[in-house]
Amino acid sequence: MSPSAIIGAMTEPPPAPVDRASDNETSRLEAFSDGVLAVIITITAFGLRVPVGGNFGALGDRLPALLIYVLSFVFIGIYWNNHHHLLRATTRVSGAVMWANLHLLFWLSLIPVVTEWVGASHTSTAPAAAYSTVALAAAMAFQLLVVAIVRTEGRDSKVAKALASDLKSRLSTVAYAASIGLAFVTPWISYALLAAVAVTWFIPDRRLER
Amino acid sequence: MSPSAIIGAMTEPPPAPVDRASDNETSRLEAFSDGVLAVIITITAFGLRVPVGGNFGALGDRLPALLIYVLSFVFIGIYWNNHHHLLRATTRVSGAVMWANLHLLFWLSLIPVVTEWVGASHTSTAPAAAYSTVALAAAMAFQLLVVAIVRTEGRDSKVAKALASDLKSRLSTVAYAASIGLAFVTPWISYALLAAVAVTWFIPDRRLER
Amino acid sequence: MSPSAIIGAMTEPPPAPVDRASDNETSRLEAFSDGVLAVIITITAFGLRVPVGGNFGALGDRLPALLIYVLSFVFIGIYWNNHHHLLRATTRVSGAVMWANLHLLFWLSLIPVVTEWVGASHTSTAPAAAYSTVALAAAMAFQLLVVAIVRTEGRDSKVAKALASDLKSRLSTVAYAASIGLAFVTPWISYALLAAVAVTWFIPDRRLER
Amino acid sequence: MSPSAIIGAMTEPPPAPVDRASDNETSRLEAFSDGVLAVIITITAFGLRVPVGGNFGALGDRLPALLIYVLSFVFIGIYWNNHHHLLRATTRVSGAVMWANLHLLFWLSLIPVVTEWVGASHTSTAPAAAYSTVALAAAMAFQLLVVAIVRTEGRDSKVAKALASDLKSRLSTVAYAASIGLAFVTPWISYALLAAVAVTWFIPDRRLER
Repeated sequence: MSPSAIIGAMTEPPPAPVDRASDNETSRLEAFSDGVLAVIITITAFGLRVPVGGNFGALGDRLPALLIYVLSFVFIGIYWNNHHHLLRATTRVSGAVMWANLHLLFWLSLIPVVTEWVGASHTSTAPAAAYSTVALAAAMAFQLLVVAIVRTEGRDSKVAKALASDLKSRLSTVAYAASIGLAFVTPWISYALLAAVAVTWFIPDRRLER
Repeated sequence: MSPSAIIGAMTEPPPAPVDRASDNETSRLEAFSDGVLAVIITITAFGLRVPVGGNFGALGDRLPALLIYVLSFVFIGIYWNNHHHLLRATTRVSGAVMWANLHLLFWLSLIPVVTEWVGASHTSTAPAAAYSTVALAAAMAFQLLVVAIVRTEGRDSKVAKALASDLKSRLSTVAYAASIGLAFVTPWISYALLAAVAVTWFIPDRRLER
Repeated sequence: MSPSAIIGAMTEPPPAPVDRASDNETSRLEAFSDGVLAVIITITAFGLRVPVGGNFGALGDRLPALLIYVLSFVFIGIYWNNHHHLLRATTRVSGAVMWANLHLLFWLSLIPVVTEWVGASHTSTAPAAAYSTVALAAAMAFQLLVVAIVRTEGRDSKVAKALASDLKSRLSTVAYAASIGLAFVTPWISYALLAAVAVTWFIPDRRLER
Repeated sequence: MSPSAIIGAMTEPPPAPVDRASDNETSRLEAFSDGVLAVIITITAFGLRVPVGGNFGALGDRLPALLIYVLSFVFIGIYWNNHHHLLRATTRVSGAVMWANLHLLFWLSLIPVVTEWVGASHTSTAPAAAYSTVALAAAMAFQLLVVAIVRTEGRDSKVAKALASDLKSRLSTVAYAASIGLAFVTPWISYALLAAVAVTWFIPDRRLER
């Protein structure tokens, strides 16, 4: 270390601004993502649509829509939770991380529409396949975000080590892909698979929790 | 403990990062919940729907919808307030607390739809019973959140002591349950009960206010 | 200053924790209000509804709706700005301040619906009168919020002195009341009055700006 | 100045509150803008509308709407990113900056409606021209915001130097203007131009990235 570097290190506090800046970066990314997820959840609920008429039969007609909304709510809740733990282990936000995050939000932003479509035609193949496709794309977008973060943080970082062998993510991806295909047999298998994956993810990712 | 570690411990403030971390945890939970509640309020207002035609008669037709919106607004306002005081007394966020919070938000996210349904068919039993059911489920979800927080914080914590005997919450739960049943007699008793509970909760929970 | 007070001042930093706590209180109130206002603005824009058909005539039919949206956008922008300056001069949040703030948000949450109604029937009296009523109620709610804050802060506080003689607010209230009445002559006078008040408020409140 | 006041001035750190205050100012502007952008993105996705019926043909009919939504999503993402970098280089928020920012948000708030219109009538001139007009107005509003910030920060500031010759912005403005005119030839040229501009902006503004 040269003398001038030492003097520089003494006159200005070098680690503090860097830390604060990167902290701001990730917290702003988190705040924006949280905002989008908060709106997605509420808009999905709003897409339930009011039953036509005031009797209980009208309410019963909305039951499939309500059940698929429960699935979507848990789905978003899981992403909120895992996203939160992922970003807490992140220290730097590159341009690639930012766009990978937006890419994830893009697929999640389609949840309200596919939820409403399944709610309207839950016995058809196309809505179930579309819902599964969005789930698959979101899962792959999350993986892409992890890759972008690991690339920014370095292979020896906390995130990289924690996510070295991500079996659960891979199985989810396979299940979502299967869910698309099996929707052509019957959409009920798709719903069962989607619900099963949700249950396995219900428990937060212990590897990233401190 | 090596001497250098002791010196390190002396020169840097050790409890601060811990405090900040837990503070971040609860504040992020609060920020996300606030975001969801903010959208719920506005979406509920948007569900009022525009009167058909430009005369005052059209406005009069929307009056029941406006009144039930006032009730829902106060309802959300009360949850925002109590939720805020509860989380201010909270220092740690476990996975159970996080999911208990999402569970509460799930029931509150149904407020826009049931509000719109009551607004459209306010003389029918089913919408009034559905609205009361959501109110009951939200009240029970709030109790569950309190239980999850007390379990995380410990029985000797500030929250546990403050909420030892929560008479008002229990009475509200009973009133909401009664409101479901009495909607089958006439929905007007349900509305009266719901409004009465709102009035008792209007005053913020003094036990948790510092 | 007594000796014990000096010692007290030396051993613990008294203003800092108080400031931070109250700072949290007001900043959370601001964050929640900002969230609601952000959703109100976007929902109002969404209420513009898509023109029917793909030609320019269809766009022309939406022009009145677009113009009233501009008015509502400026209206919300003014409240966001004044609300911000008011809360920056505020140091404490009482229960009364919190509910006065929610009361203001209630009236502002009706802006999307009345905007859409005026956009759909801009030549009728009822929508113009309803819009003016919401504007009047919001203005009075803002005054009530100021009163609640001054009561909490004390008569010698910065806010109390800055808002001692609030001529512009009083004139706005009178103009909004007149706008309701004159909508029965012709809605165009109402729109002119509402636009005129917006212009006078366009410049932020210099008294509360530092 | 009394001696005790001088001592008071010496024992408390005077520059800190100023720094924090200005930091609060820009971060609040950012938080509000982020909130609006988060809602805009989700509302635009919600405007996709559910396909009518449960078959894949119904999904195919929504494909143009989905593609234009992708464009709008990237468009908002680019503004979020550039806005973020611009405000990070900003240290002070004047009234002019605040209104210039609201003016930008006004144009961006029209994105959901024009997106939905193009999605409904993508082969017509009027929607493509309207979309291009909103894009042009938003680009000019961003330039205006830059001008307002440079005026507040001073000609020797970091922002002013970084944005001295903004070729990409000027070319975008020209392309958006051309996109309006060429929509009268065929809307497909407009879409190609809009997509081309989006690609050039995809890479974040390196001049403002630290």
